[in-house]
Amino acid sequence: MPYEFKLTRQVEFSDTDLAGIMHFSNFFRFMEAAEHAFFRSLGFSIHRARTSHSVGWPRVHADCNFKHPLHFEDTVEIRLLVREKRPKSIVYDFRFRKLNGQPVTEVARGTLAVACVKRDKSSGKMRGIRIPRAIADKIEVAPRELLH
Amino acid sequence: MPYEFKLTRQVEFSDTDLAGIMHFSNFFRFMEAAEHAFFRSLGFSIHRARTSHSVGWPRVHADCNFKHPLHFEDTVEIRLLVREKRPKSIVYDFRFRKLNGQPVTEVARGTLAVACVKRDKSSGKMRGIRIPRAIADKIEVAPRELLH
Amino acid sequence: MPYEFKLTRQVEFSDTDLAGIMHFSNFFRFMEAAEHAFFRSLGFSIHRARTSHSVGWPRVHADCNFKHPLHFEDTVEIRLLVREKRPKSIVYDFRFRKLNGQPVTEVARGTLAVACVKRDKSSGKMRGIRIPRAIADKIEVAPRELLH
Amino acid sequence: MPYEFKLTRQVEFSDTDLAGIMHFSNFFRFMEAAEHAFFRSLGFSIHRARTSHSVGWPRVHADCNFKHPLHFEDTVEIRLLVREKRPKSIVYDFRFRKLNGQPVTEVARGTLAVACVKRDKSSGKMRGIRIPRAIADKIEVAPRELLH
Repeated sequence: MPYEFKLTRQVEFSDTDLAGIMHFSNFFRFMEAAEHAFFRSLGFSIHRARTSHSVGWPRVHADCNFKHPLHFEDTVEIRLLVREKRPKSIVYDFRFRKLNGQPVTEVARGTLAVACVKRDKSSGKMRGIRIPRAIADKIEVAPRELLH
Repeated sequence: MPYEFKLTRQVEFSDTDLAGIMHFSNFFRFMEAAEHAFFRSLGFSIHRARTSHSVGWPRVHADCNFKHPLHFEDTVEIRLLVREKRPKSIVYDFRFRKLNGQPVTEVARGTLAVACVKRDKSSGKMRGIRIPRAIADKIEVAPRELLH
Repeated sequence: MPYEFKLTRQVEFSDTDLAGIMHFSNFFRFMEAAEHAFFRSLGFSIHRARTSHSVGWPRVHADCNFKHPLHFEDTVEIRLLVREKRPKSIVYDFRFRKLNGQPVTEVARGTLAVACVKRDKSSGKMRGIRIPRAIADKIEVAPRELLH
Repeated sequence: MPYEFKLTRQVEFSDTDLAGIMHFSNFFRFMEAAEHAFFRSLGFSIHRARTSHSVGWPRVHADCNFKHPLHFEDTVEIRLLVREKRPKSIVYDFRFRKLNGQPVTEVARGTLAVACVKRDKSSGKMRGIRIPRAIADKIEVAPRELLH
């Protein structure tokens, strides 16, 4: 579905901190991993895009609400939903569910807002551009009932 | 001042990503570093607190708005301000300013909301507790005009 | 095979640095991920071990030789081989092969030497112990011809 | 001294893992931080070098021997010594000393071997080059008695 993607990961030792739980900054790394896997699922290689026409997706906003901790070796599903598609940016919602243990529990919810930019080759500066048609046409906003 | 703290850091090579800028997840690591330095400035060692009476501060919310990127070797000031002090939690505001380059620019703003918890020794579970008096008494909410 | 394990991973955006390649420190994280997956393949949960009898495996030595870089979205196979099994420690060899691209190329080789320790509950100090029989009996040293 | 540099750092919460100690991969990040600070101490900005003449320093070898763990909020001195200066590469030695606690203890020793490369602008490929004279002239090999 061009508005949804699910990525499953296992919490690694290096993701944890001395409190014995996954360090909160890694929830943001996991969101980004799901975003890139979503892109690949649509047939885009972010890598190729980068080298060919230097389109980038810097983050303009990120947030996360943490309800329950994740521990080492927990299996977590990161579900991405496209919340908004604007001419020059996309907003993604993320829900984290711990799949091991009963019942399956939602442990966190987050958001990433990313802007589409072009990098100027000489100066290295980034400026906002409209999302390329080939990409924008493939991405849909998720049905409202999924975004409660 | 028991409602404010400034930490200065330099962006390291391992903080960057292939876009040539600091990876966004590291802004959250920097916020936490400022929070812990603020605690130390008040005379608390988070470390000692942990071993002696097992008080922890898991994050319940984190967000960041990114305005400008940070690059390798940029010097950044992370300014912490106490936004809210509740019986069982604290909300911190953070402003990131890039100190090198003219003019000094605010590059990002963020928030951390942290809960005070006690870890049960046998089960390992955390439960919310009132912030210990010795800590709560030392922390003040920043004047409203600083929190615009 | 109780002397070998293969883990396949994809290089993520947050694994890269401004040189456009995977940061070298992440090769060590990948080695550890393969080590833990190897343990799980033998029926041991490092997690459970930790809570039940507090056995840990701190690293005493780590090294890596880097021949070719890994880039974002490269698929890499991490092959673990048990090089040595001593009473109180294990030495693992690792070979990294980039699976995408032709021909498949070995990009790095590394080693981890880990000691078996028990954590004293009161002091928190770790002291070396003999590898528990249940674990030692399941692990074999790889045939010499694989360890060239 | 053009063969030595000392960097002092404090172990951060996000540097630790669930064993309660600094994750071993961060020792390598700390070595690199000391290497870059050493370069800056000689008047070189790695950043500027990168943009102006695209010289890079990929790692060809890294190792570390771990004797004692580092904990959250420990203060550690990373001492860099130039072990070898070859036409196209440099080998650095590193000693980690924990400064808090009595007596001051060496907790780890490591090595980084880095190659000097030039990045081809069109293909992105890196090829080994001789260390630019301006850099090579400023770096000295440490006296043998320091490298015991």
